[in-house]
Amino acid sequence: MSDPRRTNAGPSARACSVQSFKVMDVLRRANELESSMGMEVCHCEVGQPGSGAPRAVVRAAIEALTTTGDATGDGGRLGYTDAFGLTSLRRKISDHYASKYKDGGPARDGGRTIDVDRIVVTTGSSGGFLLAFTACFDSGDVVAVASSGYPCYRNVLGALGCVVASVPVDGDFKLTASGLREEVRRRRAGGEARIRGLVMSSPSNPTGAMLSPDELREMCELCDEEDIRFLSDEIYHGISYGKEEATALTYSSTAIVINSFSKYYSMSGWRLGWLVLPSDLVDAVNVLQQNMFINAPTISQAAALRCWDDETIEELEGHVAKYRASRGHVLRMVGSLVEIPKRNVAPADGGFYVYVDLGDDNVHPDSGLGSTEMCRRLLEEAGVAFTPGTDFEDPDNGLGDRRFRISYAGGTDTVRRATELFVRFWPGWVKLVRDAKIS
Amino acid sequence: MSDPRRTNAGPSARACSVQSFKVMDVLRRANELESSMGMEVCHCEVGQPGSGAPRAVVRAAIEALTTTGDATGDGGRLGYTDAFGLTSLRRKISDHYASKYKDGGPARDGGRTIDVDRIVVTTGSSGGFLLAFTACFDSGDVVAVASSGYPCYRNVLGALGCVVASVPVDGDFKLTASGLREEVRRRRAGGEARIRGLVMSSPSNPTGAMLSPDELREMCELCDEEDIRFLSDEIYHGISYGKEEATALTYSSTAIVINSFSKYYSMSGWRLGWLVLPSDLVDAVNVLQQNMFINAPTISQAAALRCWDDETIEELEGHVAKYRASRGHVLRMVGSLVEIPKRNVAPADGGFYVYVDLGDDNVHPDSGLGSTEMCRRLLEEAGVAFTPGTDFEDPDNGLGDRRFRISYAGGTDTVRRATELFVRFWPGWVKLVRDAKIS
Repeated sequence: MSDPRRTNAGPSARACSVQSFKVMDVLRRANELESSMGMEVCHCEVGQPGSGAPRAVVRAAIEALTTTGDATGDGGRLGYTDAFGLTSLRRKISDHYASKYKDGGPARDGGRTIDVDRIVVTTGSSGGFLLAFTACFDSGDVVAVASSGYPCYRNVLGALGCVVASVPVDGDFKLTASGLREEVRRRRAGGEARIRGLVMSSPSNPTGAMLSPDELREMCELCDEEDIRFLSDEIYHGISYGKEEATALTYSSTAIVINSFSKYYSMSGWRLGWLVLPSDLVDAVNVLQQNMFINAPTISQAAALRCWDDETIEELEGHVAKYRASRGHVLRMVGSLVEIPKRNVAPADGGFYVYVDLGDDNVHPDSGLGSTEMCRRLLEEAGVAFTPGTDFEDPDNGLGDRRFRISYAGGTDTVRRATELFVRFWPGWVKLVRDAKIS
Repeated sequence: MSDPRRTNAGPSARACSVQSFKVMDVLRRANELESSMGMEVCHCEVGQPGSGAPRAVVRAAIEALTTTGDATGDGGRLGYTDAFGLTSLRRKISDHYASKYKDGGPARDGGRTIDVDRIVVTTGSSGGFLLAFTACFDSGDVVAVASSGYPCYRNVLGALGCVVASVPVDGDFKLTASGLREEVRRRRAGGEARIRGLVMSSPSNPTGAMLSPDELREMCELCDEEDIRFLSDEIYHGISYGKEEATALTYSSTAIVINSFSKYYSMSGWRLGWLVLPSDLVDAVNVLQQNMFINAPTISQAAALRCWDDETIEELEGHVAKYRASRGHVLRMVGSLVEIPKRNVAPADGGFYVYVDLGDDNVHPDSGLGSTEMCRRLLEEAGVAFTPGTDFEDPDNGLGDRRFRISYAGGTDTVRRATELFVRFWPGWVKLVRDAKIS
């Protein structure tokens, strides 16, 4: 809030409250080691596909650049589009829901597909979050996030003046309706401000945990009962390993769904995503998009029209097959470390991350030996970049410095080499911690 | 602020407070008339160049799409860049300041150029505003904007919980230091909260007014004296017609400069811009960019590297020559309307707009005959799209419905035809107003 004593030297109070995204700091150091020290770093820190955009998408981008009368309808100028994006792309997104979520999917209410008017093409999921948070929440509103969870939820909500309520995940690294209900009761009993919103991802970043369709239905029902706006981050849909993917649109007419072309569709730098809005938010988000973004990048929109071509889907499923192989490597490697109990490894049912809790035995915070220090040493000594758990946990629960995330999105060779190097590094770390505990 | 009584049905209070960007509503109606009625509309509403991106920029985009080892350094994947953008592009932006603002330019402090560390590549100027506002202002902080001024300042500040203080422009359609000083005194005398920030553009949208270098220096000095953070929107630099362009960087070490590739560089749909930050905000903006945007679109960054090639500058100066010709048409046309006094036409020294005040004689608000109704009729009856002044004025000063903006960015033929049609439409409007006044 506005503080009359504050001078204008330095940033606002809200900007000061926002944490840096630690994975970006790791990335910067990894890049430094590569460029100035000539070290070859295995990048298992960022959640970015090692593959480029699909071939048909690249061809469509070139076509939009070279032809007049292209898909954008503006004669190759690549000018502004409508605030909500190209209607042709929004129609394809609507078709995607109709074909992907067949049984009890968005067709729940009598076989209708998602109305194109409810679909907004956004500047990545980042742009979607800014729109959704601003449209739903006022300064001071309490919004629940999972710990473990994606750090930007917490950080952007804070920048917008919202109050974040961390809800712990359960023993399966999941936030379910019963966990949220518990938090609602606790706050009610303590006379605390009520929870107005919930933001969570399934498959989860960093844990890979997925809610079953029934668990998702229960979460939607609880949110409707308690008048909690549910923002369902479905950015990792398409990347899962056997469990059924369900969308909140199947069970809720009040939820917002956030999605992106950066993960499954392998278009990270193109900054493109989408929202599916409940009808009561369409007008407000339209006005916010006009003012805050104008529109998502036009060339990215024109190119993304090819995302559901047969050729593209085949290519993208090939990427998922590689993720599956890499996931196997990482899980086998982590499983081979006898010092880490099986229950300390998150399920990795979807997405491209394995999240590990080192447990009390393998850290010694009093000596500064937590997962942050382990990741630092692993990068400096072995050239392997993992992300410490401090990005993903409530700063006050003490778990961030006990956990770390391995991203296996970067390609099978990278992952294979990273796991070998980590297995070689591990005994030294264990000995270091043991020695610190004895002395 | 958080209201315990509000349910989650519908948008947040802050989202409800944001006005739609009227020019987008005009654009939507114009597009409807074209697509469903077959009408040929002269688009003089949006502030968008009729030209596409420069040829060398388009070639660079295609190269980034087709080659490995491209300018982004990520082997053609077009993945994420550093939060602040490609260093090569930031270096070119720094060079641009060193070469463009020669006399007393950014070299003021001993011939140094702008440090690359202070330059952030943003997702259009829209992304720059979101970053700058969040970094500088807390909820409740008072920020001054000019009326007449760009509507998104007001709307985005409101969405972020800031309080907007409208400061009227003077008889030359300018906001100068004396106007701002007057408002500072008025608020101080009335015991009102002090002004923490100022956002303004020179050349101005919608008036085209430019501060002279001396006027800009005075504004910078006043802001430093009064601890007002100056956000200088320099998005129309490069498009001016004889008056000297000056940057706030010459006179201030605390100002933020906002710029964009959408206007002079003719890359509107590419969503690319930049900020030049004072050093005390660099770390905070880096963290905000990571969390709110990740990075500006990678392909746009790679392509924009060609923006200062000789070939590109020649092409862009050709566009400016066309704007100059179009500006002449519009000013001559408006000058020929005897009912509109010369002083009612804003100076149009830069940018690509002519802003006109109809004056009391040519409107009759009691009969609903203001500039909004005039623009509506002009579009429906003559197929010419202008923007009513309600976008650009304080909602409470009553001037919005007396003024309108003509954008001449769309091309000389469009402008020539629009002015002809408007001259034919005008006598009917004048008669309508006269008749309403008599009855």
